[in-house]
Amino acid sequence: MSLLEDLNWRHACKAYDPTKKIQKEDLEQILEAARLAPSSSGLQPFKLIVVEDQNLKDQIAPSAFNPECARECSHILVFAAWDRYTEERIDTMYNFTTDERDLPRGRFESYTDMLKKMYLQEAAESNFAHIARQTYIALGLALAQAAELKIDSTPAEGFDNAAVDQVLGLEAMGLKSVSLMYIGYADKERDWLAPMKKVRWPREEFILEM
Amino acid sequence: MSLLEDLNWRHACKAYDPTKKIQKEDLEQILEAARLAPSSSGLQPFKLIVVEDQNLKDQIAPSAFNPECARECSHILVFAAWDRYTEERIDTMYNFTTDERDLPRGRFESYTDMLKKMYLQEAAESNFAHIARQTYIALGLALAQAAELKIDSTPAEGFDNAAVDQVLGLEAMGLKSVSLMYIGYADKERDWLAPMKKVRWPREEFILEM
Repeated sequence: MSLLEDLNWRHACKAYDPTKKIQKEDLEQILEAARLAPSSSGLQPFKLIVVEDQNLKDQIAPSAFNPECARECSHILVFAAWDRYTEERIDTMYNFTTDERDLPRGRFESYTDMLKKMYLQEAAESNFAHIARQTYIALGLALAQAAELKIDSTPAEGFDNAAVDQVLGLEAMGLKSVSLMYIGYADKERDWLAPMKKVRWPREEFILEM
Repeated sequence: MSLLEDLNWRHACKAYDPTKKIQKEDLEQILEAARLAPSSSGLQPFKLIVVEDQNLKDQIAPSAFNPECARECSHILVFAAWDRYTEERIDTMYNFTTDERDLPRGRFESYTDMLKKMYLQEAAESNFAHIARQTYIALGLALAQAAELKIDSTPAEGFDNAAVDQVLGLEAMGLKSVSLMYIGYADKERDWLAPMKKVRWPREEFILEM
């Protein structure tokens, strides 16, 4: 299947069959697609949290716009962004990068100096606004990978971020939740969106050629 | 090829061969992947601008962190977000959606009323912050589609947004540039990143299991 076929196949699943769990090897492929996502300056300024424990899912559910999805899906993936850029976080990633490429540490120093100059003078909120955007690239690729595997999924921004951060203890890790992605297998009886036509702006509305 | 193979193949191209142009049918597939991207409440609150004209690319180049890429790539794609949500924009999309699904207009009225209540009381900047995030899902999928076609690409946030908005006349359209995506074929001599190992946080750093 091509990516376009996968994207046409997928939809935002509205109800999951709680008896069906995702296979470990399929889950790993979804996580890997998110891990391979590009990000600004290659910093990958977020973590992907995999929630499989039913008790934790039940604790997240009341904070979600669609609590049944949170309770009944196989896994909840939480895209959790760094709360801000720090010198240590930038250096850790670039030291790892140079080590992996057998380059001397400091090889990208003029670039990382520029990043530090730009980001560290900003308020944490401005950093976070930039960081949060990066997570959406990974969200998109994880949704595409789920579709390739014919696994149902739901991207979700509609939840109480502070409540989810508390349930997962994110603040202590310097993280803030940005989006959730439910994955599993649809309950076809209750998934009301499944039979409906996928609607997107027509090409002539969406694309401007110059 | 699978999505994971495509994501491992791609990298942020650092130099393009200005003599090589992308075929029309390949370009269409990249645009289609972006068009099929999911977005918050299905509003698709952005447009994708395709810049092929050399004169326009030359005008964008001085505003870009990597001017050579802007000048020498085959096409520049500009992800241009709505400057804010409006009642008309929300209604237009939902009227189109109900029409496409042969549902009565107003079928989703309680939902669109909730969206309007939430968004229209916010400042334009808050709207835009939410809207801009959505464009990154489409950016990620467009990058994946380019990779499936073995077309080189570069996602780029490093540019003077106001200058690009002016060159393209975006303000009059109620749009603001968020990111650029260069596409084309690498100049292998000058694309210094191509031979380097792709580096990502290791799985055990990036994934947290709960």
